[in-house]
Amino acid sequence: MKVASAGLRKVEVIPLAGIPEVEEGADLGKLILSSARKNALDLLDGDVLVVKQKIVSKAEGRLVRLDGVTPGPEAKLLAGEQGKDPKQVELILRESVRVVRAGHGVIITETKHGFVCANSGIDQSNVGKGYVALLPLDPDKSARRIRHTLEGATGKALAVLVTDTFGRPWRIGQTDVAIGCSGIAPLVSYAGKKDKFGYELRVTEPSVVDEIAGAAELALGKLAGMPVAVVRGVGYKPGEGGVRSMIMPSERDLFR
Amino acid sequence: MKVASAGLRKVEVIPLAGIPEVEEGADLGKLILSSARKNALDLLDGDVLVVKQKIVSKAEGRLVRLDGVTPGPEAKLLAGEQGKDPKQVELILRESVRVVRAGHGVIITETKHGFVCANSGIDQSNVGKGYVALLPLDPDKSARRIRHTLEGATGKALAVLVTDTFGRPWRIGQTDVAIGCSGIAPLVSYAGKKDKFGYELRVTEPSVVDEIAGAAELALGKLAGMPVAVVRGVGYKPGEGGVRSMIMPSERDLFR
Repeated sequence: MKVASAGLRKVEVIPLAGIPEVEEGADLGKLILSSARKNALDLLDGDVLVVKQKIVSKAEGRLVRLDGVTPGPEAKLLAGEQGKDPKQVELILRESVRVVRAGHGVIITETKHGFVCANSGIDQSNVGKGYVALLPLDPDKSARRIRHTLEGATGKALAVLVTDTFGRPWRIGQTDVAIGCSGIAPLVSYAGKKDKFGYELRVTEPSVVDEIAGAAELALGKLAGMPVAVVRGVGYKPGEGGVRSMIMPSERDLFR
Repeated sequence: MKVASAGLRKVEVIPLAGIPEVEEGADLGKLILSSARKNALDLLDGDVLVVKQKIVSKAEGRLVRLDGVTPGPEAKLLAGEQGKDPKQVELILRESVRVVRAGHGVIITETKHGFVCANSGIDQSNVGKGYVALLPLDPDKSARRIRHTLEGATGKALAVLVTDTFGRPWRIGQTDVAIGCSGIAPLVSYAGKKDKFGYELRVTEPSVVDEIAGAAELALGKLAGMPVAVVRGVGYKPGEGGVRSMIMPSERDLFR
Protein backbone atom coordinates (compact mmCIF):
# COMPACT_ATOMS: atom_id res chain seq x y z
CA MET A 1 0.00 0.00 0.00
CA LYS A 2 1.31 3.42 -0.81
CA VAL A 3 -0.09 6.85 -1.40
CA ALA A 4 1.41 8.08 -4.63
CA SER A 5 0.41 11.74 -4.56
CA ALA A 6 3.18 13.73 -2.97
CA GLY A 7 0.80 16.31 -1.50
CA LEU A 8 -1.14 13.83 0.59
CA ARG A 9 -0.64 14.20 4.28
CA LYS A 10 -1.42 11.04 6.17
CA VAL A 11 -2.35 11.32 9.83
CA GLU A 12 -1.15 8.52 12.11
CA VAL A 13 -2.13 7.60 15.64
CA ILE A 14 0.53 5.54 17.36
CA PRO A 15 -0.32 4.12 20.79
CA LEU A 16 2.56 4.09 23.27
CA ALA A 17 2.85 0.82 25.09
CA GLY A 18 4.70 0.27 28.34
CA ILE A 19 3.67 3.22 30.49
CA PRO A 20 3.76 1.77 34.01
CA GLU A 21 1.03 2.28 36.61
CA VAL A 22 1.32 5.97 37.53
CA GLU A 23 1.81 7.00 41.16
CA GLU A 24 1.38 10.42 42.77
CA GLY A 25 4.37 12.60 42.02
CA ALA A 26 5.33 10.70 38.85
CA ASP A 27 7.00 12.76 36.11
CA LEU A 28 4.77 11.97 33.13
CA GLY A 29 7.14 13.59 30.65
CA LYS A 30 9.90 11.21 31.72
CA LEU A 31 7.58 8.18 31.65
CA ILE A 32 6.53 9.09 28.11
CA LEU A 33 10.14 9.53 26.96
CA SER A 34 11.06 6.17 28.45
CA SER A 35 8.07 4.50 26.79
CA ALA A 36 8.91 6.10 23.42
CA ARG A 37 12.46 4.76 23.72
CA LYS A 38 11.17 1.27 24.56
CA ASN A 39 8.92 1.46 21.47
CA ALA A 40 11.85 2.67 19.34
CA LEU A 41 9.74 5.71 18.50
CA ASP A 42 11.57 8.98 17.82
CA LEU A 43 9.40 12.01 18.43
CA LEU A 44 9.30 14.37 15.43
CA ASP A 45 8.62 18.10 15.12
CA GLY A 46 4.88 18.59 15.09
CA ASP A 47 3.98 15.39 16.93
CA VAL A 48 1.05 15.69 19.29
CA LEU A 49 1.29 13.68 22.49
CA VAL A 50 -2.14 12.75 23.77
CA VAL A 51 -2.23 11.92 27.46
CA LYS A 52 -5.35 10.57 29.13
CA GLN A 53 -6.60 12.55 32.08
CA LYS A 54 -6.56 9.59 34.44
CA ILE A 55 -2.77 9.32 34.61
CA VAL A 56 -2.46 13.09 34.93
CA SER A 57 -4.86 13.04 37.86
CA LYS A 58 -2.91 10.18 39.43
CA ALA A 59 0.44 11.95 39.00
CA GLU A 60 -1.01 15.13 40.44
CA GLY A 61 -2.50 13.46 43.51
CA ARG A 62 -6.11 13.95 42.46
CA LEU A 63 -7.32 10.53 43.65
CA VAL A 64 -9.71 10.68 46.58
CA ARG A 65 -10.69 7.87 48.92
CA LEU A 66 -14.49 7.88 49.08
CA ASP A 67 -14.42 6.60 52.69
CA GLY A 68 -13.03 9.93 53.87
CA VAL A 69 -15.75 12.06 52.28
CA THR A 70 -18.64 13.32 54.39
CA PRO A 71 -21.65 14.25 52.24
CA GLY A 72 -23.54 17.43 53.11
CA PRO A 73 -27.32 17.86 52.92
CA GLU A 74 -27.33 19.02 49.27
CA ALA A 75 -25.28 16.01 48.20
CA LYS A 76 -27.55 13.63 50.13
CA LEU A 77 -30.67 15.09 48.54
CA LEU A 78 -29.29 15.02 44.99
CA ALA A 79 -27.82 11.55 45.47
CA GLY A 80 -31.20 10.27 46.62
CA GLU A 81 -32.97 11.84 43.67
CA GLN A 82 -30.51 10.42 41.13
CA GLY A 83 -29.77 7.08 42.79
CA LYS A 84 -26.10 7.86 43.32
CA ASP A 85 -23.55 7.48 46.13
CA PRO A 86 -23.83 10.59 48.40
CA LYS A 87 -20.06 10.65 48.93
CA GLN A 88 -19.47 10.77 45.18
CA VAL A 89 -22.14 13.45 44.76
CA GLU A 90 -20.47 15.50 47.49
CA LEU A 91 -17.26 15.48 45.42
CA ILE A 92 -19.20 16.26 42.23
CA LEU A 93 -20.64 19.35 43.94
CA ARG A 94 -17.30 20.41 45.42
CA GLU A 95 -15.65 20.26 41.98
CA SER A 96 -18.42 22.25 40.30
CA VAL A 97 -19.70 25.80 40.22
CA ARG A 98 -23.24 24.64 39.49
CA VAL A 99 -25.49 21.78 38.44
CA VAL A 100 -26.57 22.33 34.83
CA ARG A 101 -29.03 19.42 34.63
CA ALA A 102 -29.91 16.40 36.76
CA GLY A 103 -32.16 13.59 35.61
CA HIS A 104 -32.30 9.92 34.62
CA GLY A 105 -29.50 9.21 37.10
CA VAL A 106 -27.19 11.69 35.38
CA ILE A 107 -25.74 14.82 36.97
CA ILE A 108 -24.37 17.37 34.51
CA THR A 109 -22.33 20.10 36.14
CA GLU A 110 -20.20 23.04 35.14
CA THR A 111 -16.78 22.39 36.64
CA LYS A 112 -14.56 25.07 38.12
CA HIS A 113 -12.63 24.99 34.82
CA GLY A 114 -15.84 25.79 32.92
CA PHE A 115 -16.31 22.32 31.41
CA VAL A 116 -19.90 21.12 31.21
CA CYS A 117 -19.85 17.36 31.69
CA ALA A 118 -21.27 14.46 33.67
CA ASN A 119 -20.28 14.16 37.35
CA SER A 120 -17.77 17.05 37.19
CA GLY A 121 -15.53 14.63 35.30
CA ILE A 122 -15.14 12.43 38.38
CA ASP A 123 -14.99 8.72 37.77
CA GLN A 124 -14.10 5.39 39.28
CA SER A 125 -12.62 3.46 36.37
CA ASN A 126 -8.95 2.46 36.36
CA VAL A 127 -8.22 3.95 39.80
CA GLY A 128 -8.74 1.07 42.24
CA LYS A 129 -11.57 0.09 44.58
CA GLY A 130 -12.81 2.78 46.94
CA TYR A 131 -11.17 5.62 45.05
CA VAL A 132 -12.32 8.17 42.50
CA ALA A 133 -10.27 10.44 40.29
CA LEU A 134 -10.93 14.18 40.14
CA LEU A 135 -9.93 16.20 37.07
CA PRO A 136 -6.56 17.96 37.22
CA LEU A 137 -6.86 21.43 38.76
CA ASP A 138 -5.43 23.12 35.64
CA PRO A 139 -5.19 20.70 32.71
CA ASP A 140 -3.66 23.33 30.38
CA LYS A 141 -0.85 23.71 32.90
CA SER A 142 -0.53 19.91 33.18
CA ALA A 143 -0.12 19.73 29.39
CA ARG A 144 2.42 22.55 29.43
CA ARG A 145 4.51 20.86 32.09
CA ILE A 146 4.64 17.58 30.14
CA ARG A 147 5.46 19.45 26.92
CA HIS A 148 8.36 21.28 28.50
CA THR A 149 9.89 18.01 29.70
CA LEU A 150 9.44 16.41 26.26
CA GLU A 151 10.75 19.41 24.32
CA GLY A 152 13.67 19.82 26.70
CA ALA A 153 14.73 16.22 26.21
CA THR A 154 14.14 15.95 22.46
CA GLY A 155 14.70 19.47 21.13
CA LYS A 156 11.56 19.01 18.99
CA ALA A 157 8.56 21.36 18.75
CA LEU A 158 5.71 19.31 20.18
CA ALA A 159 2.15 19.69 21.36
CA VAL A 160 0.55 17.96 24.32
CA LEU A 161 -3.12 17.29 25.00
CA VAL A 162 -4.73 16.06 28.18
CA THR A 163 -7.95 14.27 27.22
CA ASP A 164 -11.04 12.91 28.90
CA THR A 165 -14.20 11.12 27.83
CA PHE A 166 -17.27 13.37 27.75
CA GLY A 167 -20.84 12.68 26.75
CA ARG A 168 -22.75 15.10 24.59
CA PRO A 169 -26.36 16.13 24.34
CA TRP A 170 -28.61 14.67 21.65
CA ARG A 171 -26.36 11.73 20.82
CA ILE A 172 -25.84 8.52 22.77
CA GLY A 173 -22.25 7.67 23.60
CA GLN A 174 -19.17 9.64 24.40
CA THR A 175 -16.11 10.93 22.62
CA ASP A 176 -12.73 11.85 23.97
CA VAL A 177 -12.12 15.61 24.04
CA ALA A 178 -9.25 17.80 25.10
CA ILE A 179 -9.44 19.23 28.62
CA GLY A 180 -5.97 20.73 28.41
CA CYS A 181 -3.48 21.55 25.69
CA SER A 182 -0.12 23.19 25.17
CA GLY A 183 1.85 24.06 22.07
CA ILE A 184 -1.20 23.93 19.79
CA ALA A 185 -3.94 26.43 18.95
CA PRO A 186 -7.12 24.55 19.92
CA LEU A 187 -9.16 25.94 17.01
CA VAL A 188 -8.30 26.21 13.32
CA SER A 189 -9.68 29.48 12.04
CA TYR A 190 -11.02 29.58 8.50
CA ALA A 191 -12.42 33.10 8.97
CA GLY A 192 -11.83 35.02 5.76
CA LYS A 193 -10.74 31.91 3.83
CA LYS A 194 -12.63 31.26 0.61
CA ASP A 195 -13.77 28.00 -0.98
CA LYS A 196 -13.08 27.29 -4.65
CA PHE A 197 -16.30 29.11 -5.62
CA GLY A 198 -15.21 32.26 -3.78
CA TYR A 199 -17.58 31.77 -0.85
CA GLU A 200 -16.10 32.97 2.42
CA LEU A 201 -16.17 30.55 5.34
CA ARG A 202 -17.18 32.79 8.19
CA VAL A 203 -17.97 30.62 11.16
CA THR A 204 -15.85 27.57 10.49
CA GLU A 205 -13.43 26.89 13.34
CA PRO A 206 -12.70 23.19 13.64
CA SER A 207 -11.65 22.13 17.10
CA VAL A 208 -8.49 20.36 16.09
CA VAL A 209 -7.68 19.41 19.70
CA ASP A 210 -11.01 17.63 20.19
CA GLU A 211 -10.63 15.84 16.86
CA ILE A 212 -7.12 14.73 17.84
CA ALA A 213 -8.41 13.59 21.24
CA GLY A 214 -11.04 11.40 19.57
CA ALA A 215 -8.54 10.06 17.03
CA ALA A 216 -6.23 9.01 19.86
CA GLU A 217 -9.04 7.20 21.64
CA LEU A 218 -9.57 5.06 18.52
CA ALA A 219 -6.10 3.60 19.03
CA LEU A 220 -6.06 3.52 22.84
CA GLY A 221 -9.46 2.26 23.95
CA LYS A 222 -10.50 2.17 27.59
CA LEU A 223 -9.08 -1.07 28.92
CA ALA A 224 -5.73 -1.80 27.31
CA GLY A 225 -3.84 0.19 29.92
CA MET A 226 -2.46 2.49 27.22
CA PRO A 227 -2.94 6.10 28.30
CA VAL A 228 -0.68 7.85 25.75
CA ALA A 229 -0.67 8.12 21.97
CA VAL A 230 1.38 10.07 19.46
CA VAL A 231 -0.67 11.72 16.73
CA ARG A 232 1.51 12.55 13.75
CA GLY A 233 0.84 14.48 10.56
CA VAL A 234 -1.77 17.00 11.75
CA GLY A 235 -1.08 20.44 10.31
CA TYR A 236 -1.87 22.46 13.41
CA LYS A 237 -0.79 25.92 14.45
CA PRO A 238 1.32 26.34 17.57
CA GLY A 239 -0.41 28.36 20.27
CA GLU A 240 -0.68 28.78 24.02
CA GLY A 241 -4.35 29.69 24.51
CA GLY A 242 -5.12 26.33 26.04
CA VAL A 243 -8.46 24.54 26.09
CA ARG A 244 -9.48 27.32 28.48
CA SER A 245 -9.73 29.64 25.45
CA MET A 246 -12.17 27.25 23.76
CA ILE A 247 -14.81 27.39 26.48
CA MET A 248 -17.98 29.07 25.24
CA PRO A 249 -18.53 32.30 27.19
CA SER A 250 -21.81 32.05 29.08
CA GLU A 251 -23.21 35.12 27.30
CA ARG A 252 -22.89 33.31 23.94
CA ASP A 253 -24.04 29.96 25.29
CA LEU A 254 -27.53 28.87 24.24
CA PHE A 255 -27.56 25.74 26.41
CA ARG A 256 -26.46 26.79 29.88
CA MET B 1 10.56 5.37 12.89
CA LYS B 2 9.07 2.03 13.84
CA VAL B 3 6.85 0.69 16.54
CA ALA B 4 8.57 -2.39 17.86
CA SER B 5 5.81 -3.88 20.01
CA ALA B 6 3.86 -6.34 17.92
CA GLY B 7 0.60 -5.74 19.76
CA LEU B 8 0.39 -2.06 18.91
CA ARG B 9 -2.37 -1.15 16.52
CA LYS B 10 -1.66 2.06 14.68
CA VAL B 11 -4.59 4.00 13.24
CA GLU B 12 -3.99 5.76 9.93
CA VAL B 13 -6.01 8.41 8.14
CA ILE B 14 -5.26 8.50 4.43
CA PRO B 15 -6.83 11.32 2.41
CA LEU B 16 -7.96 10.34 -1.08
CA ALA B 17 -6.90 12.85 -3.69
CA GLY B 18 -8.41 13.20 -7.12
CA ILE B 19 -12.15 12.98 -6.50
CA PRO B 20 -13.56 15.20 -9.25
CA GLU B 21 -16.28 17.83 -8.70
CA VAL B 22 -19.40 15.77 -7.98
CA GLU B 23 -22.54 16.26 -10.08
CA GLU B 24 -26.09 15.13 -9.39
CA GLY B 25 -26.47 11.44 -10.14
CA ALA B 26 -22.79 10.65 -9.66
CA ASP B 27 -21.96 7.17 -8.36
CA LEU B 28 -19.80 7.99 -5.36
CA GLY B 29 -18.72 4.40 -4.88
CA LYS B 30 -17.27 4.36 -8.39
CA LEU B 31 -15.59 7.75 -7.94
CA ILE B 32 -13.97 6.52 -4.72
CA LEU B 33 -12.75 3.30 -6.36
CA SER B 34 -11.28 5.28 -9.23
CA SER B 35 -9.56 7.69 -6.84
CA ALA B 36 -8.17 4.81 -4.76
CA ARG B 37 -6.74 3.28 -7.95
CA LYS B 38 -5.18 6.60 -8.96
CA ASN B 39 -3.62 6.83 -5.47
CA ALA B 40 -2.38 3.23 -5.75
CA LEU B 41 -4.32 2.50 -2.57
CA ASP B 42 -5.74 -1.01 -2.12
CA LEU B 43 -8.69 -1.10 0.24
CA LEU B 44 -8.26 -3.66 3.02
CA ASP B 45 -10.74 -5.56 5.18
CA GLY B 46 -11.82 -3.27 8.01
CA ASP B 47 -11.07 0.01 6.24
CA VAL B 48 -13.51 2.82 6.99
CA LEU B 49 -14.29 5.14 4.10
CA VAL B 50 -15.22 8.56 5.36
CA VAL B 51 -17.23 10.60 2.87
CA LYS B 52 -18.06 14.24 3.51
CA GLN B 53 -21.74 15.09 3.40
CA LYS B 54 -21.33 17.77 0.79
CA ILE B 55 -20.50 15.40 -2.06
CA VAL B 56 -23.27 13.03 -0.95
CA SER B 57 -25.75 15.91 -1.07
CA LYS B 58 -24.47 16.90 -4.51
CA ALA B 59 -24.72 13.35 -5.87
CA GLU B 60 -28.23 13.01 -4.46
CA GLY B 61 -29.50 16.26 -5.93
CA ARG B 62 -29.82 18.03 -2.58
CA LEU B 63 -28.53 21.40 -3.82
CA VAL B 64 -31.14 24.15 -3.86
CA ARG B 65 -31.00 27.46 -5.69
CA LEU B 66 -31.89 30.15 -3.15
CA ASP B 67 -33.50 32.31 -5.88
CA GLY B 68 -36.33 29.81 -6.23
CA VAL B 69 -37.25 29.77 -2.52
CA THR B 70 -40.19 31.86 -1.25
CA PRO B 71 -39.93 32.52 2.48
CA GLY B 72 -43.10 32.25 4.54
CA PRO B 73 -44.01 34.51 7.48
CA GLU B 74 -42.30 32.37 10.13
CA ALA B 75 -39.06 32.34 8.13
CA LYS B 76 -39.22 36.11 7.60
CA LEU B 77 -39.74 36.74 11.30
CA LEU B 78 -36.95 34.41 12.44
CA ALA B 79 -34.60 35.68 9.73
CA GLY B 80 -35.20 39.25 10.90
CA GLU B 81 -34.57 38.35 14.54
CA GLN B 82 -31.35 36.49 13.77
CA GLY B 83 -30.04 38.65 10.94
CA LYS B 84 -30.20 35.86 8.35
CA ASP B 85 -31.38 35.45 4.76
CA PRO B 86 -35.16 34.69 4.85
CA LYS B 87 -34.82 32.25 1.93
CA GLN B 88 -32.21 30.29 3.79
CA VAL B 89 -34.27 30.34 6.98
CA GLU B 90 -37.26 29.04 5.01
CA LEU B 91 -35.17 26.02 4.02
CA ILE B 92 -33.88 25.61 7.58
CA LEU B 93 -37.47 25.43 8.80
CA ARG B 94 -38.58 23.07 6.01
CA GLU B 95 -35.76 20.64 6.86
CA SER B 96 -36.51 20.68 10.58
CA VAL B 97 -39.16 19.40 12.94
CA ARG B 98 -38.57 22.27 15.38
CA VAL B 99 -36.33 25.11 16.42
CA VAL B 100 -34.39 24.07 19.55
CA ARG B 101 -32.74 27.46 20.19
CA ALA B 102 -32.30 30.72 18.34
CA GLY B 103 -30.02 33.51 19.48
CA HIS B 104 -26.84 35.44 18.70
CA GLY B 105 -27.50 34.89 14.97
CA VAL B 106 -27.56 31.14 15.41
CA ILE B 107 -30.54 28.89 14.70
CA ILE B 108 -30.31 25.41 16.24
CA THR B 109 -32.92 23.00 14.93
CA GLU B 110 -33.84 19.38 15.22
CA THR B 111 -33.75 18.00 11.69
CA LYS B 112 -36.17 15.44 10.33
CA HIS B 113 -33.44 12.83 10.92
CA GLY B 114 -33.31 13.81 14.62
CA PHE B 115 -29.97 15.64 14.46
CA VAL B 116 -29.72 18.75 16.60
CA CYS B 117 -27.44 21.18 14.76
CA ALA B 118 -27.11 24.71 13.41
CA ASN B 119 -29.24 25.66 10.40
CA SER B 120 -30.63 22.13 9.90
CA GLY B 121 -27.20 21.28 8.52
CA ILE B 122 -27.75 23.57 5.52
CA ASP B 123 -24.73 25.48 4.29
CA GLN B 124 -23.29 27.47 1.46
CA SER B 125 -19.64 26.43 1.39
CA ASN B 126 -18.22 24.49 -1.54
CA VAL B 127 -21.46 24.47 -3.52
CA GLY B 128 -21.29 27.54 -5.77
CA LYS B 129 -22.79 31.00 -5.57
CA GLY B 130 -26.54 31.21 -5.07
CA TYR B 131 -26.86 27.59 -3.94
CA VAL B 132 -27.09 25.84 -0.61
CA ALA B 133 -26.72 22.16 0.20
CA LEU B 134 -29.33 20.32 2.25
CA LEU B 135 -28.40 17.19 4.19
CA PRO B 136 -29.05 13.85 2.47
CA LEU B 137 -32.56 12.57 3.14
CA ASP B 138 -31.30 9.32 4.68
CA PRO B 139 -27.53 9.45 5.31
CA ASP B 140 -27.42 5.88 6.69
CA LYS B 141 -28.86 4.72 3.37
CA SER B 142 -26.38 6.89 1.46
CA ALA B 143 -23.54 5.21 3.38
CA ARG B 144 -25.02 1.77 2.71
CA ARG B 145 -25.26 2.40 -1.01
CA ILE B 146 -21.63 3.51 -1.24
CA ARG B 147 -20.51 0.54 0.86
CA HIS B 148 -22.30 -1.93 -1.38
CA THR B 149 -20.56 -0.55 -4.45
CA LEU B 150 -17.17 -0.63 -2.73
CA GLU B 151 -17.62 -4.13 -1.27
CA GLY B 152 -18.98 -5.44 -4.58
CA ALA B 153 -15.93 -4.20 -6.45
CA THR B 154 -13.26 -5.12 -3.90
CA GLY B 155 -14.64 -8.18 -2.08
CA LYS B 156 -13.48 -6.58 1.18
CA ALA B 157 -15.53 -6.03 4.36
CA LEU B 158 -15.68 -2.25 4.67
CA ALA B 159 -17.48 0.46 6.58
CA VAL B 160 -18.65 3.81 5.23
CA LEU B 161 -19.41 7.00 7.12
CA VAL B 162 -21.09 10.14 5.84
CA THR B 163 -19.83 13.05 7.94
CA ASP B 164 -20.68 16.68 8.53
CA THR B 165 -19.33 19.51 10.65
CA PHE B 166 -21.44 20.23 13.74
CA GLY B 167 -21.00 22.73 16.53
CA ARG B 168 -21.52 21.69 20.11
CA PRO B 169 -22.79 23.50 23.18
CA TRP B 170 -20.36 24.85 25.78
CA ARG B 171 -17.30 24.74 23.53
CA ILE B 172 -16.34 27.08 20.74
CA GLY B 173 -15.61 25.46 17.40
CA GLN B 174 -16.91 22.46 15.55
CA THR B 175 -15.96 18.84 15.02
CA ASP B 176 -16.86 16.50 12.23
CA VAL B 177 -19.38 13.86 13.27
CA ALA B 178 -21.06 10.97 11.51
CA ILE B 179 -24.52 11.64 10.12
CA GLY B 180 -24.73 8.26 8.42
CA CYS B 181 -22.91 4.95 8.64
CA SER B 182 -23.00 1.44 7.29
CA GLY B 183 -21.04 -1.68 8.11
CA ILE B 184 -19.99 -0.40 11.53
CA ALA B 185 -21.67 -0.36 14.94
CA PRO B 186 -21.70 3.35 15.83
CA LEU B 187 -21.03 2.76 19.53
CA VAL B 188 -18.50 0.53 21.27
CA SER B 189 -20.13 -1.00 24.30
CA TYR B 190 -18.01 -1.57 27.37
CA ALA B 191 -21.03 -2.53 29.48
CA GLY B 192 -20.03 -5.37 31.78
CA LYS B 193 -16.32 -5.02 30.92
CA LYS B 194 -14.00 -4.60 33.90
CA ASP B 195 -10.88 -2.50 34.35
CA LYS B 196 -7.70 -4.02 35.79
CA PHE B 197 -8.92 -3.26 39.32
CA GLY B 198 -12.16 -5.18 38.73
CA TYR B 199 -14.32 -2.05 38.42
CA GLU B 200 -17.15 -2.51 35.92
CA LEU B 201 -17.51 0.18 33.24
CA ARG B 202 -21.24 0.66 33.14
CA VAL B 203 -21.97 3.70 31.03
CA THR B 204 -18.96 3.80 28.73
CA GLU B 205 -19.99 3.68 25.08
CA PRO B 206 -17.49 5.52 22.92
CA SER B 207 -18.97 6.81 19.69
CA VAL B 208 -16.41 5.30 17.38
CA VAL B 209 -18.10 6.75 14.29
CA ASP B 210 -17.88 10.31 15.61
CA GLU B 211 -14.25 9.81 16.62
CA ILE B 212 -13.46 8.44 13.15
CA ALA B 213 -15.28 11.39 11.55
CA GLY B 214 -13.13 13.84 13.48
CA ALA B 215 -9.95 11.90 12.74
CA ALA B 216 -10.72 12.08 9.02
CA GLU B 217 -11.26 15.83 9.20
CA LEU B 218 -7.74 16.23 10.56
CA ALA B 219 -6.39 14.92 7.27
CA LEU B 220 -8.97 16.46 4.93
CA GLY B 221 -9.55 20.02 6.15
CA LYS B 222 -12.23 22.24 4.66
CA LEU B 223 -10.64 23.74 1.59
CA ALA B 224 -8.34 21.23 -0.08
CA GLY B 225 -11.15 19.76 -2.17
CA MET B 226 -10.60 16.36 -0.60
CA PRO B 227 -13.92 14.94 0.54
CA VAL B 228 -12.92 11.31 1.19
CA ALA B 229 -10.48 9.62 3.55
CA VAL B 230 -9.67 6.04 4.40
CA VAL B 231 -9.32 5.36 8.12
CA ARG B 232 -7.39 2.16 8.73
CA GLY B 233 -6.65 0.17 11.86
CA VAL B 234 -9.74 0.94 13.97
CA GLY B 235 -10.97 -2.19 15.74
CA TYR B 236 -14.68 -1.61 15.24
CA LYS B 237 -17.58 -4.03 15.27
CA PRO B 238 -19.61 -4.49 12.09
CA GLY B 239 -23.22 -3.41 12.48
CA GLU B 240 -26.18 -2.00 10.60
CA GLY B 241 -27.88 0.18 13.21
CA GLY B 242 -26.78 3.35 11.50
CA VAL B 243 -26.24 6.75 13.06
CA ARG B 244 -30.02 6.74 13.47
CA SER B 245 -29.57 4.28 16.36
CA MET B 246 -27.23 6.74 18.12
CA ILE B 247 -29.75 9.58 18.40
CA MET B 248 -30.67 10.27 22.02
CA PRO B 249 -34.37 9.46 22.52
CA SER B 250 -36.17 12.64 23.57
CA GLU B 251 -37.34 11.04 26.84
CA ARG B 252 -33.69 10.56 27.90
CA ASP B 253 -32.54 13.92 26.54
CA LEU B 254 -31.77 16.56 29.17
CA PHE B 255 -31.12 19.34 26.64
CA ARG B 256 -34.03 19.32 24.23
